[in-house]
Amino acid sequence: MKFNLQKGISILERTPKVLENYLSGLSKDWTHANEGDGTWSPVEIVAHLILGEKTDWMIRAEIILSDRASKDFVPFDMESHLQYAKAHTIQALLNEFTLLRGENIEKLKAMNLTSDQLKLTGMHSEFGEVPLRELLSTWVAHDLGHISQISRVMAKQYQHEVGPWTKYLGILTNWKEQ
Amino acid sequence: MKFNLQKGISILERTPKVLENYLSGLSKDWTHANEGDGTWSPVEIVAHLILGEKTDWMIRAEIILSDRASKDFVPFDMESHLQYAKAHTIQALLNEFTLLRGENIEKLKAMNLTSDQLKLTGMHSEFGEVPLRELLSTWVAHDLGHISQISRVMAKQYQHEVGPWTKYLGILTNWKEQ
Repeated sequence: MKFNLQKGISILERTPKVLENYLSGLSKDWTHANEGDGTWSPVEIVAHLILGEKTDWMIRAEIILSDRASKDFVPFDMESHLQYAKAHTIQALLNEFTLLRGENIEKLKAMNLTSDQLKLTGMHSEFGEVPLRELLSTWVAHDLGHISQISRVMAKQYQHEVGPWTKYLGILTNWKEQ
Repeated sequence: MKFNLQKGISILERTPKVLENYLSGLSKDWTHANEGDGTWSPVEIVAHLILGEKTDWMIRAEIILSDRASKDFVPFDMESHLQYAKAHTIQALLNEFTLLRGENIEKLKAMNLTSDQLKLTGMHSEFGEVPLRELLSTWVAHDLGHISQISRVMAKQYQHEVGPWTKYLGILTNWKEQ
C-alpha cells in the first residue's frame, strides 16, 4: 500500500476516539501498569502521543514546507512525557490528545498538500534528508504501533492468569525487542 | 494483576466500541490487507472474534457450570471465519460482534460468579482440566491480543512508506511468530 494523504488521515483522525473508548474510565490496574522496568504504561503512551502532537509531526511538516534556510528537526524528546503522565489523570491526557490531534488534522487538511510537496525534505539529525511523505507515513504507523503496544501491555497484566492458554496467546510471547 | 471479574468485564465490554471506532467506514486497503500468506486481515480477525462469541467463551463457561457428566470443550474452529469474512461487509461483522458480545456480557454478569465457581473446571482437548478463571482471563487477553494484531497488520501496510524510520517503529519488526 502506497501512502495516500486521505487514507492516512482516516487513521490519524480515529486514534483519539479509539483511545477514549479503550482507556477512559478504566481501572489504573490497566492504565498504569507496564511490561517491566524501562517500559511504558498506557497512560505514559498517551502522554508520549501528546508530545508528538506538540513537538513532532506537524511541527516537522511545517519546517519542511517553510522558507527557512535550515530544515533541521528537533529530536523527539523520549523522556519528559513520563513526568507529564505522572502530573495528569488519564482523562485529562485523553482530552488533551483529542484536542491537539483535532487541531493538527485541521492544519494538515488545510495545507492541501500536492504530490510535489510530499517530496520536499527536512533534515533528521540521524537519518539526514527525509521527505514529507515518509514523515506522514511514519505518523500513521506510529499511531498504530502505540495502539498495538497499549493492547499488548494490558494483555500482559494477565500473563500469569491464563494458564496453559499462554501457548496460543502470541501477544504474551512473540514481541521481541531488538 | 490477578483476574478480577469486574475488571475483566471492563475490557470485554469495550472491545466492540474500540473496533467500531477503529474499522467502521475505513478503506478496504486497511481492513482487507494482511501480513502475508496465511495471516489474517482485520476483517478476518473480526470474523474470528464473532466465532468466539458463538462457539467458545460463554459456551465453555456454560459447560463448566453445567451438571453434565462430560465437560469437554469443542475445539475452536480456526478456519471457517475466513469464509464468513468473505461473505459479509466489515460493517455487518462489526454490528454482529457488538450484538453478540453485548448478549454474552449480560449472560456473564447474570451468572454472579463466586470465587468458588471460578475454580470449577472444563476439559480442554489439549490442556486437560482448566478452571473457569483461566478461561475468562484468556477471553480478555485474547481480545487485547487481536486489537494489537489489527493495529500491527494495518501498520505493516506502510512498512515500505516510512523510509529510515523503520528503525524506530518496532511494530514493523519486533513481532516474531514462534
